[in-house]
Amino acid sequence: MGLGKDESETAERSDRSLSEDENRMNPDAEAKEKKGGGSGSSEDESNGLSVERIFEGQEVPSWRGQLTFRAFAVSFVLSVMFAFIVMKLNLTAGIIPSLNVSAGLLGFFFVKTWTKVLDKSGLLRVPFTRQENTVIQTCVVASSGIAFSGGFGTYLFAMSKRVADQSKDPQRAQVFKDPSLSWMIGFLFVVSFLGLFAVVPLRKIMIIDFKLTYPSGTATAHLINSFHTPEGAKLAKKQVKALGKFFSFSFLWGFFQWFYTAGDGCGFTEFPSLGLKALQYRFYFDFSATYVGVGMICPYIINVSVLLGGILSWGLMWPLIETREGHWYPADEGPTSMRGIQGYKVFISIAIILGDGLYNFFKVLGRTLSGLYRQLQDREMSHVLPIANGSSPKNPQVSYDDRRRTQLFLKDQIPTWFAIAGYVTIAAISTASLPHMFPQLKWFYILVIYLFAPTLGFCNAYGCGLTDWSLASTYGTLAIFMIGAWAGASHGGILAGLAACGVMMNIVSTASDLTQDFKTGYLTLASPRSMFVSQVIGTAMGCVISPCVFWLFYKAFKDLGLPGSAYPVPYGIVFRSMAELGVEGVSSLPKHCLTLCYGFFSAAMIINGFRDLVGKKWVRFIPLPMAMAIPFYIGPYFAIDMCVGSLILFIWEKINKTKADAFGPAVASGLICGDGIWTLPSSILALAGVNPPICMKFLSRATNKRVNGFLGS
Amino acid sequence: MGLGKDESETAERSDRSLSEDENRMNPDAEAKEKKGGGSGSSEDESNGLSVERIFEGQEVPSWRGQLTFRAFAVSFVLSVMFAFIVMKLNLTAGIIPSLNVSAGLLGFFFVKTWTKVLDKSGLLRVPFTRQENTVIQTCVVASSGIAFSGGFGTYLFAMSKRVADQSKDPQRAQVFKDPSLSWMIGFLFVVSFLGLFAVVPLRKIMIIDFKLTYPSGTATAHLINSFHTPEGAKLAKKQVKALGKFFSFSFLWGFFQWFYTAGDGCGFTEFPSLGLKALQYRFYFDFSATYVGVGMICPYIINVSVLLGGILSWGLMWPLIETREGHWYPADEGPTSMRGIQGYKVFISIAIILGDGLYNFFKVLGRTLSGLYRQLQDREMSHVLPIANGSSPKNPQVSYDDRRRTQLFLKDQIPTWFAIAGYVTIAAISTASLPHMFPQLKWFYILVIYLFAPTLGFCNAYGCGLTDWSLASTYGTLAIFMIGAWAGASHGGILAGLAACGVMMNIVSTASDLTQDFKTGYLTLASPRSMFVSQVIGTAMGCVISPCVFWLFYKAFKDLGLPGSAYPVPYGIVFRSMAELGVEGVSSLPKHCLTLCYGFFSAAMIINGFRDLVGKKWVRFIPLPMAMAIPFYIGPYFAIDMCVGSLILFIWEKINKTKADAFGPAVASGLICGDGIWTLPSSILALAGVNPPICMKFLSRATNKRVNGFLGS
Repeated sequence: MGLGKDESETAERSDRSLSEDENRMNPDAEAKEKKGGGSGSSEDESNGLSVERIFEGQEVPSWRGQLTFRAFAVSFVLSVMFAFIVMKLNLTAGIIPSLNVSAGLLGFFFVKTWTKVLDKSGLLRVPFTRQENTVIQTCVVASSGIAFSGGFGTYLFAMSKRVADQSKDPQRAQVFKDPSLSWMIGFLFVVSFLGLFAVVPLRKIMIIDFKLTYPSGTATAHLINSFHTPEGAKLAKKQVKALGKFFSFSFLWGFFQWFYTAGDGCGFTEFPSLGLKALQYRFYFDFSATYVGVGMICPYIINVSVLLGGILSWGLMWPLIETREGHWYPADEGPTSMRGIQGYKVFISIAIILGDGLYNFFKVLGRTLSGLYRQLQDREMSHVLPIANGSSPKNPQVSYDDRRRTQLFLKDQIPTWFAIAGYVTIAAISTASLPHMFPQLKWFYILVIYLFAPTLGFCNAYGCGLTDWSLASTYGTLAIFMIGAWAGASHGGILAGLAACGVMMNIVSTASDLTQDFKTGYLTLASPRSMFVSQVIGTAMGCVISPCVFWLFYKAFKDLGLPGSAYPVPYGIVFRSMAELGVEGVSSLPKHCLTLCYGFFSAAMIINGFRDLVGKKWVRFIPLPMAMAIPFYIGPYFAIDMCVGSLILFIWEKINKTKADAFGPAVASGLICGDGIWTLPSSILALAGVNPPICMKFLSRATNKRVNGFLGS
Repeated sequence: MGLGKDESETAERSDRSLSEDENRMNPDAEAKEKKGGGSGSSEDESNGLSVERIFEGQEVPSWRGQLTFRAFAVSFVLSVMFAFIVMKLNLTAGIIPSLNVSAGLLGFFFVKTWTKVLDKSGLLRVPFTRQENTVIQTCVVASSGIAFSGGFGTYLFAMSKRVADQSKDPQRAQVFKDPSLSWMIGFLFVVSFLGLFAVVPLRKIMIIDFKLTYPSGTATAHLINSFHTPEGAKLAKKQVKALGKFFSFSFLWGFFQWFYTAGDGCGFTEFPSLGLKALQYRFYFDFSATYVGVGMICPYIINVSVLLGGILSWGLMWPLIETREGHWYPADEGPTSMRGIQGYKVFISIAIILGDGLYNFFKVLGRTLSGLYRQLQDREMSHVLPIANGSSPKNPQVSYDDRRRTQLFLKDQIPTWFAIAGYVTIAAISTASLPHMFPQLKWFYILVIYLFAPTLGFCNAYGCGLTDWSLASTYGTLAIFMIGAWAGASHGGILAGLAACGVMMNIVSTASDLTQDFKTGYLTLASPRSMFVSQVIGTAMGCVISPCVFWLFYKAFKDLGLPGSAYPVPYGIVFRSMAELGVEGVSSLPKHCLTLCYGFFSAAMIINGFRDLVGKKWVRFIPLPMAMAIPFYIGPYFAIDMCVGSLILFIWEKINKTKADAFGPAVASGLICGDGIWTLPSSILALAGVNPPICMKFLSRATNKRVNGFLGS
């Protein structure tokens, strides 16, 4: 089973590459595919060429040789950068595109510059290899993964007082745990390493025996391989240049915008580009370079789905429901109250997310089990073959690439006893310490989670290998409901559920991420040992960097988490509401809300069913319910940004497809990174109390007349 | 003397192509040069190829055949369009770039489409020839010339009450004549045709005998010739497409901006892109597509000069003079009073304009006289040659092109008695009727003007043929001072001077414009008779269209002519102040203003002297005083727009010089035309009382707080 097969499978799935994670899109497979296509190297093997033959002359360094100081220095810099970017995305719309492409590009760029400088000064001892590049990639992915799975935009922030205050029930609003730097770092350290150890013993089964696809991991490996061929390096240089140009533009644009944001409702983010009435229903272009870039990376169907969802909810349903004020829900509730219009927004979103999640959970589970069953059968039939246990009967001829990769992958072993001992030790520490942080989370809840976690982690890693979908958030949601119901309202079930969600999500998400990395390592001849060390270091970095970055945002922006602010943290309230739902049931929802929820829950399932039933030709015209759910709560403004990004890419592809394919992801990454990095100085300015000088305000003609009268007098 | 020679002379002069007209830039020579270069046809002859040999197979239609109905229909549409554009430019910053390139392109495009449609339906009888194209070009130039020389932004508006009210002296503010549609059309009809008849008898001397260059006319002819070769037509099609694209963009951008302009101080034109303090001193980018386009057409040195002038005046001098408030000028004067800071702005501008104007007047006069002297000597020596009287002894070999062109130019004669009779008749009508419109303008003033006018018209046409500079405004200024002083203050010298200025400017400006057209006709084998008819029809169109367009602006925008408004009509107050100065002297200027004026007057002369002394290599680093003077009064905001245009062109040239040269003028024309045409719907909306819905306002942080408090309560 060569790369050519993988490729076609990836392409087949690329339009479905919206991650099962509620708020984590994974279109990187497609993006990298394009990139690989641009550099012309990913098709090498399908054309009968062997990638490893090209690299035959290059010696593979020992696993210790792959772990250089410079690699971790670069990883640290990139980790901080990506932590800012992921955090900004977490706290705004919650849609996170894959940043692996930019991590790959930037890692290559930094180390290449570094080695060039050293080479010129005669100090270079170790040349820059693709293994080292993979180590950087792995470390950055592990570290920035924490920025997502740490739950700063989801379960962790859902515990805070700011979110609790938006609750329906004043008594329940007393149940909160405000973020603090110390417990967040501690929490992440005790839960984040478990997935790592859980996955180590399984890596051989997944990669060698089952030969799972891992589209993202494979694409990343192609990218890294192509960088280290002379032609690929040339293209990479140009891509880095494009990235740098749009990085600067996006950064400066963020800086320029800042000057006009003195006060609430000021600045470009309030620009009524479609009129004041449309602005009121959050239809406007908010000039965010980030989401334009996200739109350029995400497949068209995601962008269209998001826009459709926005039109359906804010264009149609909410205005209609508002006319029922006083009938369906009390008129005197505030705009943030869950008993008012806000309740419909949040719970209908949850219904769609759950419907889509559950459908895909069972679908992926089914495929996992049937795939597993077939693999095990195959394995028994083919275990007599000398090296390649995984070569399926369909493809008995083992290629040179496969032989060489398998040989190196199996060279450096990590003993299974080491993995098991590590898992047990950390689980014990974790079980003992977590109840001190969250008194509501009893030790036996944790023990139960840890007994099941390896199995769930394996399921997720296997499913992700097949479909590129990580189900981490769905497993987290399950934990919220299970543990929440078990603990019950009187025993602080809300907090117990949210904390359990964190424990579960970290294990499950790490498991799939790191198996992806092992696949990348397998394809670039990186040693599993060096990968493991890189993952450990990356995870440790992430456990410190992410909470610090979150803390900076939290302290700098006082309205973080409030609806309508620059950082609404949409999934905070969604997770909190799910926890409350799990603990107390559906009795307190506003009128007809439950009916609507049932309707949308079923609709999400049915639409997903349709997507699976109709052929490949039609599936790209059926929207994704998961993507449609996001604007239901926060509004369609970011969908307009994303569609602008789509439009730019579409026109670019019309004009020059080759160039758009080669540079589109780089330009998008530049836009995302520049704007993301601007949040660093912007939050520092906010902390230092430096306020922007000008307010760009938009007033209706009548209001403007009144204001002019006031200012004139 | 072939075209090759003309070309090199044009290139030599292109960086000085700021027209002597105070507010009319003529960089078209350079722009067209580029265009000609892009289409590859203008160098035909210098490469030894004959242009007329290419067209040898094409029959030249009779002069009646050149005058088609479709040509005048297209001319009418374009005339209306250009009237809007020129009017908008007149009334905003007063810098008018040459629109001949766009007139040529659009004329070609319209007729080509027309003939194509007819051709397909089998109805086409007369094919589209370059002679017909020249007829359109001539008609549009004649018509849109009136929009400038009609003085709607200068002498004519200077008579109005709105300008008079800004005067220093309340008694003199009583001297005004408000515009009205009837007297404006009448006035234009009785003064505009004189230049036409004055120039007709001289055309053979200028074109055939003296073989004057007329850079703009020559470049236009190259453009038209190139359009009618198959390759040129292909390029023209692409250029038209580029023009159309940017036309639409610019139009839609104007439309988009409109929505945010509910009320004064709202919208993009008040965007403090460099901060609020800079906005106060008019340093900001005002998002005007028009002036970005103007900046792309004008040579770099003009844009830099304008910016330098802005920095010198609004960045340095006015802030310094403001600190002297109460000492140099009374503190209680309003911001528009000529006794206050406004006096410095207006009179220093006038000083520079007069210094530069006077210097160039004497320079061009000197060159005219010496050139004339040499030509007459040459003529006596060579009048024995059979056809080509004009072939100088340097170039005794007469080329095929010259022979053929001369033959056709001399075929259709316009009798001299007809021209003289026409001039005398119109002069008589004019002398009799003008004193009824302006009682202050006695009939003998007009008679004196008409006695000298043909000579001055000849001077201007000759000077323009040599240098591409039209001195119309300078002659107009002279008339203001002469007639103003003659009439004296007690007899309404202000109005007499301004009216005399109008009479003078119309004759002199028409004379040079139309000789340019004859040159174009000569080079494209258009008959002088068809040119003359086209000019008469174009002038008549202009006499009706321009006042109507002005009237639309005047009625639609109630704050037209007030400083700081969207249409400040900067030259209105400048011309009025010149008239007052001519009548009453300098006694009432604020303190030290006269000293400053002397200084800037001399500086303008000295800088011009330097420009003539230093070599070609350095002259492009010395700013043009005339261009520097414009922002002194209205502020540097449009200079920033123009520099943005320059920057765009500069970067474009760096990336792809060929493309920038071929499409730069088309893009710039698109930007100018789109924004200009938007003023038509915008003024109709204003007339209909449709107001924009939103006000985009910029407030300082402190003001914003107050406003929020006010709106909240």
